[in-house]
Amino acid sequence: MAITYELIKRCSQTGARVGKLYTPHGVFDTPIFMPVGTQATVKSMSPRELKDMGTGIILSNTYHLYLRPGHQLIAEAGGLHTFMHWDGGILTDSGGFQVFSLGPLRKITEDGVTFRSHIDGSKHFLSPEKATEVQMALGADIIMAFDECVPYPADYEYARLSTARTSRWAERCKAAHTRKDQGLFGIVQGGMHKDLRRISVSDLVSLDFPGYAIGGLSVGEPKPLMYEMLAYTVPLLPEKKPRYLMGVGTPDCLVEGVMYGIDMFDCVFPTRVARNGTVMTSRGRLVVKNAEYARDFQPIDPDCGCYTCRNFTRAYIRHLLKAEEIFGLRLTTIHNLYFLLSFMKNMRKAILEDKFLAFREEFWSHYRRQ
Amino acid sequence: MAITYELIKRCSQTGARVGKLYTPHGVFDTPIFMPVGTQATVKSMSPRELKDMGTGIILSNTYHLYLRPGHQLIAEAGGLHTFMHWDGGILTDSGGFQVFSLGPLRKITEDGVTFRSHIDGSKHFLSPEKATEVQMALGADIIMAFDECVPYPADYEYARLSTARTSRWAERCKAAHTRKDQGLFGIVQGGMHKDLRRISVSDLVSLDFPGYAIGGLSVGEPKPLMYEMLAYTVPLLPEKKPRYLMGVGTPDCLVEGVMYGIDMFDCVFPTRVARNGTVMTSRGRLVVKNAEYARDFQPIDPDCGCYTCRNFTRAYIRHLLKAEEIFGLRLTTIHNLYFLLSFMKNMRKAILEDKFLAFREEFWSHYRRQ
Repeated sequence: MAITYELIKRCSQTGARVGKLYTPHGVFDTPIFMPVGTQATVKSMSPRELKDMGTGIILSNTYHLYLRPGHQLIAEAGGLHTFMHWDGGILTDSGGFQVFSLGPLRKITEDGVTFRSHIDGSKHFLSPEKATEVQMALGADIIMAFDECVPYPADYEYARLSTARTSRWAERCKAAHTRKDQGLFGIVQGGMHKDLRRISVSDLVSLDFPGYAIGGLSVGEPKPLMYEMLAYTVPLLPEKKPRYLMGVGTPDCLVEGVMYGIDMFDCVFPTRVARNGTVMTSRGRLVVKNAEYARDFQPIDPDCGCYTCRNFTRAYIRHLLKAEEIFGLRLTTIHNLYFLLSFMKNMRKAILEDKFLAFREEFWSHYRRQ
Repeated sequence: MAITYELIKRCSQTGARVGKLYTPHGVFDTPIFMPVGTQATVKSMSPRELKDMGTGIILSNTYHLYLRPGHQLIAEAGGLHTFMHWDGGILTDSGGFQVFSLGPLRKITEDGVTFRSHIDGSKHFLSPEKATEVQMALGADIIMAFDECVPYPADYEYARLSTARTSRWAERCKAAHTRKDQGLFGIVQGGMHKDLRRISVSDLVSLDFPGYAIGGLSVGEPKPLMYEMLAYTVPLLPEKKPRYLMGVGTPDCLVEGVMYGIDMFDCVFPTRVARNGTVMTSRGRLVVKNAEYARDFQPIDPDCGCYTCRNFTRAYIRHLLKAEEIFGLRLTTIHNLYFLLSFMKNMRKAILEDKFLAFREEFWSHYRRQ
């Protein structure tokens, strides 16, 4: 099997756990945060910079790469790893989430989804088989089953029909998936309905995937509701398989996700806000573009060891951002990714030392909204 | 003296020469190309990347830094080197060129130039004393006298009066310049009039600057006319001082400039065209954004040793540029700067081996417009 998971240590008081994720491109410690490289690049970053800061796996988006430059072109290049010169792990999503987000531009049937490109309006069709074929061409280490992300809010009947279809689609993805050097993960749906979550888990686990994602969370629902769904759903999943919470990447949600037993996370949050001049610190957000930092000659976070904080001041970064210089958003992106990767590392350490609850308490004691 | 020049080797057949430029931030081999970092950053590049590719000195623009973030703020930060975390050499221009380029937004008197900011329309005044004060606050290794760049074309009488004023201004700059850890260069003007060039050189040399720039070339005149002015002017300059040709950076002009005895060059050309998807190769320009490179899995230049060419294909770079990804223009910028720095290195080597004319002949034999 291309993807295996080894459970190393369980927290004695919570669901938190440390493990190792074995992939064709390396072994990665979990819980792990995966930076997002939508278009075969983590925005503004070089592969070398990602590697230097300890990035293990990145996520790339099938929908975007399918449309541009095209999965066949990437296959001709030798696959996504070679194309983008990244020899670490890669996970691709199925394209489902993006396609469903197109709203009036898409139409769903049992067979799949017809949609129009956001780039040029051209018509396309994605199905479980097609999404799997595209992801096999891209050649990521971990690929995702084609699902419908149940929107929030969704009534019970919609969620029930959609979730059942996602299960049927997962089966079709599995049948279509023939590459032995990549692992196909199933995605648990079910909206905010516990019984549907239970059914979804049961359907997917019967297909025996090498890992399971929890989809349909962090889609607009209140955070306590997300936590409630996690608390209910995660324990239903097999202990020996990695669990991936899709689209989550703020420090508060990472801490809580880890507590409930999640092993993998991805989110555009750290890179997106960085480009707007917002940086994360252990004390919460800091909008480095603000006038108050014009003459502030400290680093973003004096406790941080990233390239940005070791060498550059808030005043300089603010100047670059105000002057619309690319290097400014490179510096904020480097910091935010390093911050989150370190944050995960600290959580792993706390779990290994069986001090996770203390870590969480300390985190919440000085947390301001990130 | 903060800036000294050591002549190492003279070409036996042309004016070309190899030397060493001693500055408070390092000793640099000449002829040298200086990348432009207008707003205290070489667009898209980190200081580490610049250092890694062998950059010695960069140029930064006084006009831009005076307006934003302000020279006082940079002085508070510890000077430009500290502010931008660059421990190599820095040369600042005087702001004159930018201010004169503002056209109707500026007014010239004997005292100086009143102008309006291109950022917010606010009113400002630059004079020889003020430009020198600003450059002392910025703290570059080499600073430039405040001059008027005679436009092209300019009638004789305009050029004569302007050039004479530039000489008077040079004297005022020298009187105002009190920092011992930086060198102030004079700028030769005179338009396309040889006798005015001769007078300008004579005026400036009598002030005994540690180096001399040749201004007012590469301002729209035909290249043969620029070369004619260089052939006439350079030999008038003292052999023991460095000579800097401002605003020149295409390979053809670099070869010819070196042949006439120029030691220093700067230009936005390599970085600006890189951001538009044009890259330089030993065989001329290549517009990597073009459709013909969509499936071209070779590097930009198979003979190039830069980070870009060692690791990435034309197809990938084209994809990034089409998708408007920042990393695309980082890669083209890295390549173009590396290309020009290597080009200078090869010229230095040719001069040291007394093979410069052969180098030049070889260059022109396969040169297409860059």
